[in-house]
Amino acid sequence: MSVQPAPAAYAPTDRTVPTRARDRAAYDRESVHSILDAGYLCHLGFVRDGAPVVLPTLYGRVGERLYVHGSTGSRPLREAGRQDPGLPVCLTVTHVDGLVLARSAFHHSINYRSVVVHGTAHPVTDPEEKRSALDAFVDHVVPGRAADSRPADAKELAATAVLSLDLNEVSAKARTGGPNDDPEDQELPYWSGVLPVARAYGAPVPADDLAPGVAVPDYLRAL
Amino acid sequence: MSVQPAPAAYAPTDRTVPTRARDRAAYDRESVHSILDAGYLCHLGFVRDGAPVVLPTLYGRVGERLYVHGSTGSRPLREAGRQDPGLPVCLTVTHVDGLVLARSAFHHSINYRSVVVHGTAHPVTDPEEKRSALDAFVDHVVPGRAADSRPADAKELAATAVLSLDLNEVSAKARTGGPNDDPEDQELPYWSGVLPVARAYGAPVPADDLAPGVAVPDYLRAL
Repeated sequence: MSVQPAPAAYAPTDRTVPTRARDRAAYDRESVHSILDAGYLCHLGFVRDGAPVVLPTLYGRVGERLYVHGSTGSRPLREAGRQDPGLPVCLTVTHVDGLVLARSAFHHSINYRSVVVHGTAHPVTDPEEKRSALDAFVDHVVPGRAADSRPADAKELAATAVLSLDLNEVSAKARTGGPNDDPEDQELPYWSGVLPVARAYGAPVPADDLAPGVAVPDYLRAL
Repeated sequence: MSVQPAPAAYAPTDRTVPTRARDRAAYDRESVHSILDAGYLCHLGFVRDGAPVVLPTLYGRVGERLYVHGSTGSRPLREAGRQDPGLPVCLTVTHVDGLVLARSAFHHSINYRSVVVHGTAHPVTDPEEKRSALDAFVDHVVPGRAADSRPADAKELAATAVLSLDLNEVSAKARTGGPNDDPEDQELPYWSGVLPVARAYGAPVPADDLAPGVAVPDYLRAL
């Protein structure tokens, strides 16, 4: 029996084809994975009592599956447990890469990369899947950290609710490059261009009660 | 006639009181405004055909009113125009301040500040309000920039749809400080502490066709 390889791209749907700036949209797995893997914070949307709710939360990716987690008492996790067959969600990840300053106020923009995932989130009940999802969270934030910390015990696993969301209905979107001013604005005396934006890490701050002699690990220095 | 001053805090509601970590929630205007004013990108959630949609978009604040904008063809803008009396939304702004590395995988966390706004978004039709909203977008991204660019003309104003969202049902949430490891984990040989995260700006990249002699303005250097 041969295993069918996953297609190189997600099939566009009505929800994932933007109504405007279609040339900024991409559906290939490589673009989507690289944007997802460059971040760890997503904004998770769901519907509660008919109204939208958007909460920031951490996520991890394992292959074609995303995980989000929280206390078993948190809202989306409780909602997902209550709904059958799962909780319809929209999970969005955005990175800002630059502020685009045009001569005209109208053409101001930002350079960004984003991924929007539509789908149904399901509670993860299998203990092994839950454990690897928790490792994925930790390694998504700081690659290499999961192996350098105490793994969750049975009690902690039970207190953590994890939702899974498969990558099926997915799109990436990005803007790059300089401002798109109208030609007649080109001579205006306003500076125009891009101010690059990036995430910066400060010097690690050790915990007050860090045991003596524990050095800052290499995977942190690498960030 | 005396003008009643706005109360110093937003009244908590069922939607704005978290089910967990209630001690991290705040409702005072000062906290909410300062978190909103420190950013320019929000994640806007709305319901489309019964399912949640979360899109990244720019926002601005003028007093107790937020504005988001987009092309008149974009989805939330079209939805808001179609719905009467407006589009139920949830607008969320999140800043990541640090990665919290505990000895245990379970207690890993992030330091963050976030604001969640629930409400109904309305299309802005008054041209003067629209114009000041557009200035607010530009100045939210780069303070001082609106006055140093060509203002939108009538055609551009017509092509831009703006939604307003009043700050009524609002909460702020923040986590600060070091890891909360269990006392029995304190002697474990894993580094623990906080890796500070901040937004960093690179050197401004001028547009290819920037008119000669236009210097980088002071408000950009200030960032």
